[in-house]
Amino acid sequence: MYTYNQPVKILHGAGILEKLGEEAIQYGNKAFIVTGKTSAHKTGLIERVKEILLKSSIEYVIFNRAESNPLTTTAMIGAKVYKEEGCDFVLGIGGGSAMDCAKAIAFLTENEGDISDYIMGIKQGENAAPILLVTTTAGTGSEANSLAVLTNPENNDKKSLKHPSIYAKVSFVDPELMVTLPTRFIASCGFDAFTHCYEAFIANRSTPESAALALEGIEMIFENLVNVYHDPTDIQSFSKVAHANTLGGIAIDMSGVNLNHGLEHPVSGLLDASHGEGLAALFIPTFEYTKDKVREKLIKIGELITDKSATDDEKVESTCKKIKSILEEIDLNITLTDLGVKEKHINWLTENAFKTMNYAITNNPIIATHEDVKEIYKKCL
Amino acid sequence: MYTYNQPVKILHGAGILEKLGEEAIQYGNKAFIVTGKTSAHKTGLIERVKEILLKSSIEYVIFNRAESNPLTTTAMIGAKVYKEEGCDFVLGIGGGSAMDCAKAIAFLTENEGDISDYIMGIKQGENAAPILLVTTTAGTGSEANSLAVLTNPENNDKKSLKHPSIYAKVSFVDPELMVTLPTRFIASCGFDAFTHCYEAFIANRSTPESAALALEGIEMIFENLVNVYHDPTDIQSFSKVAHANTLGGIAIDMSGVNLNHGLEHPVSGLLDASHGEGLAALFIPTFEYTKDKVREKLIKIGELITDKSATDDEKVESTCKKIKSILEEIDLNITLTDLGVKEKHINWLTENAFKTMNYAITNNPIIATHEDVKEIYKKCL
Repeated sequence: MYTYNQPVKILHGAGILEKLGEEAIQYGNKAFIVTGKTSAHKTGLIERVKEILLKSSIEYVIFNRAESNPLTTTAMIGAKVYKEEGCDFVLGIGGGSAMDCAKAIAFLTENEGDISDYIMGIKQGENAAPILLVTTTAGTGSEANSLAVLTNPENNDKKSLKHPSIYAKVSFVDPELMVTLPTRFIASCGFDAFTHCYEAFIANRSTPESAALALEGIEMIFENLVNVYHDPTDIQSFSKVAHANTLGGIAIDMSGVNLNHGLEHPVSGLLDASHGEGLAALFIPTFEYTKDKVREKLIKIGELITDKSATDDEKVESTCKKIKSILEEIDLNITLTDLGVKEKHINWLTENAFKTMNYAITNNPIIATHEDVKEIYKKCL
Repeated sequence: MYTYNQPVKILHGAGILEKLGEEAIQYGNKAFIVTGKTSAHKTGLIERVKEILLKSSIEYVIFNRAESNPLTTTAMIGAKVYKEEGCDFVLGIGGGSAMDCAKAIAFLTENEGDISDYIMGIKQGENAAPILLVTTTAGTGSEANSLAVLTNPENNDKKSLKHPSIYAKVSFVDPELMVTLPTRFIASCGFDAFTHCYEAFIANRSTPESAALALEGIEMIFENLVNVYHDPTDIQSFSKVAHANTLGGIAIDMSGVNLNHGLEHPVSGLLDASHGEGLAALFIPTFEYTKDKVREKLIKIGELITDKSATDDEKVESTCKKIKSILEEIDLNITLTDLGVKEKHINWLTENAFKTMNYAITNNPIIATHEDVKEIYKKCL
């Protein structure tokens, strides 16, 4: 028994941002723009969005306070401003952080109290303000799903709000907006997208739909991420990485992440590290931990990159090799030590992983114990 | 550049119908039940639905006039009754005909005038009443898409209304409701589902998403349709065929049908023949016509059913053989003559295919001329 529900209208393609006005006007004439402090401003994107909105006679208020790991408290402030300003819809512009902050704000305009209660499942939410998203990274897949990852500054818990009301009405995936990203971002976002596809593909809650879409995404990342890292102006390759990212977002919405994400959230929650870099540091040990249980799936991945004469063992082997070589080529062959994790953090990280990410740990084909998790963290130092 | 939008909440699984009440109550407390004259009554399904609705305090009006190829005029009468009765939502129960009639009625409650004008693109529609669907066949995929195929009794034009407002809010795919179907229906509906997957897979407008989902559907049909035909009580296999059907519905919503459907609609429009049987009669000649242009795709299908040592030629060959053997095993190795088509009809059928199904003909990897189409019809007699 399963449910299939992918309600986001995703508009994909170079130049597609031009359609923002005609889509947005269907949700009202005052936008609450949620974005980060700098990048969308520096690239001129915010100015361009303003012009597009004005052409459709849409007013706007700009809330540019989304942090790189957005805080629950920021979302609560945002919702207050949204209501004071009497906006009609939320428009999130940026990477996963800005989009997740936007989704959380939209949720809080319709649900009273502390958002952490909804995140931890203590309270059940209702509706949200309409959400439109413009993604400027090929990373989180947030434009395609009902997840918003937030960090509670009181206890560093980093956890997703998952609620059907926070699907975007319309999302814009325009690779032209991504070519100015620093290459370090391209690498970490692209690897995040890869892990979404990979984790959803092997997940216990994997479905035929999520697996099929995730495998497409894996192939697109294999074929294009290294190209894009070396030449971000290669718009055709970037379009594929962006596409894979969306597929990963859909796939985790259906089937969830598992061990790699489960162990990463505590790291970036505690140390404000880059999520994609944390995933890279943790990937190989979590992969090795799980690999014997998902041999059939690794064979399927291996079929994408081996010729027809390859044996099953060779297919599995080439999957491992391919992922390692991608990490090498995009300069993400890093350790948790590089991100500031020390041995003294491991107990907290382990406890926090089970507290905030238990659903992800139990979604892994091999379910790790506390001892296993500590062992994996140690290997990643 | 492409759009991905699959907004239907699809609830799938044996026994899932029990959730109808809790889903329906979100759309109001008076249902307009659209169904056919006989089968859903005979099987006791309508009685069961009434009980489920009453448990959630939902009233209902029953409109049991959906024909097997539903007429535009019937939908117009239905919309009139819906409004007179002051219903809150439409609940379609049955196969593709009942569901398509339900969708058309929901559309007409919000859009004035002749529905044929919307079908032919002369007028643009707006909203529709909320739609819930319960599919009792694994055939049309209508539960998953924004299409409603209707026949205009004045000129026998059989063509789809395609409009975003007619996506169901929630669809119920419960294989337990399908086991009482006559085997002839199981065959024709199942083959319809197969052609949706196959046509979307090879379509010019195929996308990575539609192709991935369609290929899953093809595999499920290959592995389960014959079983189900011989033993409809095999609920596990039926669940897979029903799943494939939904995947086909999603896939054609994204990428459209092509030559086989393009040539079939005129046949069932003119002669009130079974759609699935028409597809079966036309399949091999349309397949052969197109096959050299889609060799790579046929190889991918062939990989599902050959062992690893097979050559590309063997994969293509085994795909052809597999489809022919399925048609044989489910007793659908039939001709257009069996369905009442005569040589004298061919000119009308050809003209009508280009009039009503031009979008499908141009979505075929090889675009047929009038002469080609006549030739194919002749071969199928």
